[in-house]
Amino acid sequence: MHDVSIIGVGQVPVSEHWDMGLRQLALGAIQAALGDAGIERVDAVVVGNALAGNLSAQNHVGALVAEYAGLSGAEAYRVEAADASGGLALRQGYLAVASGSAETVLVVGVEKATDRTGSERDTALATVLDADYEAAGGGTPAAMAALLMRRYMHEYGVALDQFEPFSVNAHANGSLNPFAMYRNKLRPGAFGKAPLVADPVNLFDSAPEGDGAAAVILTTTGRAVDMVPRPVRVRGSAAATDALALHNRADMLFLRAANLAAGRAYEQAEITPADLQLAELHDSYTILTALQLEATGFARRGEGVALAADGTITRAGRLPISTFGGLKARGNPLGATGVYQAVEVALQLRRDAGENQVDNARLGLVLSIGGLGGTAVAHILERVE
Amino acid sequence: MHDVSIIGVGQVPVSEHWDMGLRQLALGAIQAALGDAGIERVDAVVVGNALAGNLSAQNHVGALVAEYAGLSGAEAYRVEAADASGGLALRQGYLAVASGSAETVLVVGVEKATDRTGSERDTALATVLDADYEAAGGGTPAAMAALLMRRYMHEYGVALDQFEPFSVNAHANGSLNPFAMYRNKLRPGAFGKAPLVADPVNLFDSAPEGDGAAAVILTTTGRAVDMVPRPVRVRGSAAATDALALHNRADMLFLRAANLAAGRAYEQAEITPADLQLAELHDSYTILTALQLEATGFARRGEGVALAADGTITRAGRLPISTFGGLKARGNPLGATGVYQAVEVALQLRRDAGENQVDNARLGLVLSIGGLGGTAVAHILERVE
Repeated sequence: MHDVSIIGVGQVPVSEHWDMGLRQLALGAIQAALGDAGIERVDAVVVGNALAGNLSAQNHVGALVAEYAGLSGAEAYRVEAADASGGLALRQGYLAVASGSAETVLVVGVEKATDRTGSERDTALATVLDADYEAAGGGTPAAMAALLMRRYMHEYGVALDQFEPFSVNAHANGSLNPFAMYRNKLRPGAFGKAPLVADPVNLFDSAPEGDGAAAVILTTTGRAVDMVPRPVRVRGSAAATDALALHNRADMLFLRAANLAAGRAYEQAEITPADLQLAELHDSYTILTALQLEATGFARRGEGVALAADGTITRAGRLPISTFGGLKARGNPLGATGVYQAVEVALQLRRDAGENQVDNARLGLVLSIGGLGGTAVAHILERVE
Repeated sequence: MHDVSIIGVGQVPVSEHWDMGLRQLALGAIQAALGDAGIERVDAVVVGNALAGNLSAQNHVGALVAEYAGLSGAEAYRVEAADASGGLALRQGYLAVASGSAETVLVVGVEKATDRTGSERDTALATVLDADYEAAGGGTPAAMAALLMRRYMHEYGVALDQFEPFSVNAHANGSLNPFAMYRNKLRPGAFGKAPLVADPVNLFDSAPEGDGAAAVILTTTGRAVDMVPRPVRVRGSAAATDALALHNRADMLFLRAANLAAGRAYEQAEITPADLQLAELHDSYTILTALQLEATGFARRGEGVALAADGTITRAGRLPISTFGGLKARGNPLGATGVYQAVEVALQLRRDAGENQVDNARLGLVLSIGGLGGTAVAHILERVE
């Protein structure tokens, strides 16, 4: 198994890009990543995309993206696991290089989320749930997150405003990130007055869907060290699943897929959670952030919110998260999100994070979650000294 | 890179399964494959599926399929490249084992194509084309195949009835296959009187979409030879792309992706087309069959139809194709089709093909095509003596 490293990263701002389709968005990120790596060709293209079939009436996105980027002929395909698709694309690119099947792989996450609005968008978003047993009954991801949050509050005696610091931190970091969809800081008291999305989930508990694309380029670490001054090693890569429908899970408040994926990645990297200096978690809902901190070894059950209260998760804290704004402020371009997370951790480890820089970061976790935890993909990235 | 072999295969009949959804169909194929391999657990599940988001309002199919098969917890995800998704799933499973990331991988292709009918189904099928430049103008896969066929007939002076033997062969073989959707032989003269689907493509030129699921189980060849009496080696695996829209291709009558994918697979397997004893091609349209024979080294440009005329492609011929009926008679369950093809070639190489058996098969090609050739995935399978 070859050792694998990231040699280039690229992203476009997450926004409502009404003047760009899937191919144009992807091209922006691809050109940036190729430029960053200083190369022009790749052997294969892996596209992470969640909902283009439903939101853009476009499947077969691998060939589409490769063609528009001038890479037609290369192997190119799409992988999908809801909004974990980007993390999954990184994992497939990793396997292609690790196996020796490809020398250089382009991983690109892309989503066009704003062409559909209202109930059309809600219906598309609900396809990541169990269609027969959740969505058919009117369930949406926000509604399912609300069930989780209500249960968490009841089970552990947690109040709604204890989730507020997650959003305050995300927006504080997002305000410095030129690629973020929302660059406003959260005013004190705004969280408590935010309109409800699905009781008790409010506007500042949930991340906004946006259009976006991000890309990373992978090659063997052996080649990487000769190609770029600061490659980022993929020390661990793993994925896992859980029951899709919440009601089929043994314990709704334990993200088993996240626990398994992170555990396998830690094992491969031969580290413990204490060795990490930052983590990009999938903060599509604040309740998911708390549950991820608990599932990945940073907090005990019911105590994820405590890491928000005591400042652990801020850039100056012990375990910074959402360092560029997270899904909450940077925006959630669904199938592209996992690749944005990888780009952000890579920039941190290279010390290229500008105003968002975390001090002395050497090892970072990237955790992507599909839907409400049906899929989880974990990567451990490492600064190469 | 580990050597990889198939140790189990399974399939359900392709049909209009109005009493089964995605998960039930997949389970049938999975149980058959696990039983065939004599195992109960796998490390990872790769799902090939093309259109569940559009046809079943269900994305995130990896977790869904794994859960219902009792494999929740395992890594599971969906790969998509239109109706090449099944071939692509086989390739991803291959890479997972080849890299050493997983010891045993379940590859399952599944599609529920008959829940939507009429224009709803047509709209879903058209998402495999270029949405902005083909489907937006009313293009459908059948319409695009018609453009190709008309051009081929004009360019090479080929008459419509020269495509007839492709369908006669497919139906003759399908009539013996208990898993085939259509088990009727084609009556003499029926082809010429068939209703048009998109002039000049008629009913017997085009394969019917059906519901179905097929599965194969992969492990290292080293383990495989101790586990089952007759493993089937994956000697070559490759994928390639071409421009998605026909009008963007340098030469519309040359399937460049198929040529590249097959060429790479031949190279990896260290064989030439002459070494193959059978080929499962993607005969969604007879024109595509002719073009695939030309792109993969079996016929010169414009002469693919000659192999149909002289009986080369029948089970008694030099290069049998569609040996279980192909997409035309077995049916085309879209994202599951590539896995059906692999199951069929594996059965041939194991001499388990029953009435459909081809004599002395040692090496077989599996070629999956996405849409009208935007993606191609090629595998070379080998009998292990």
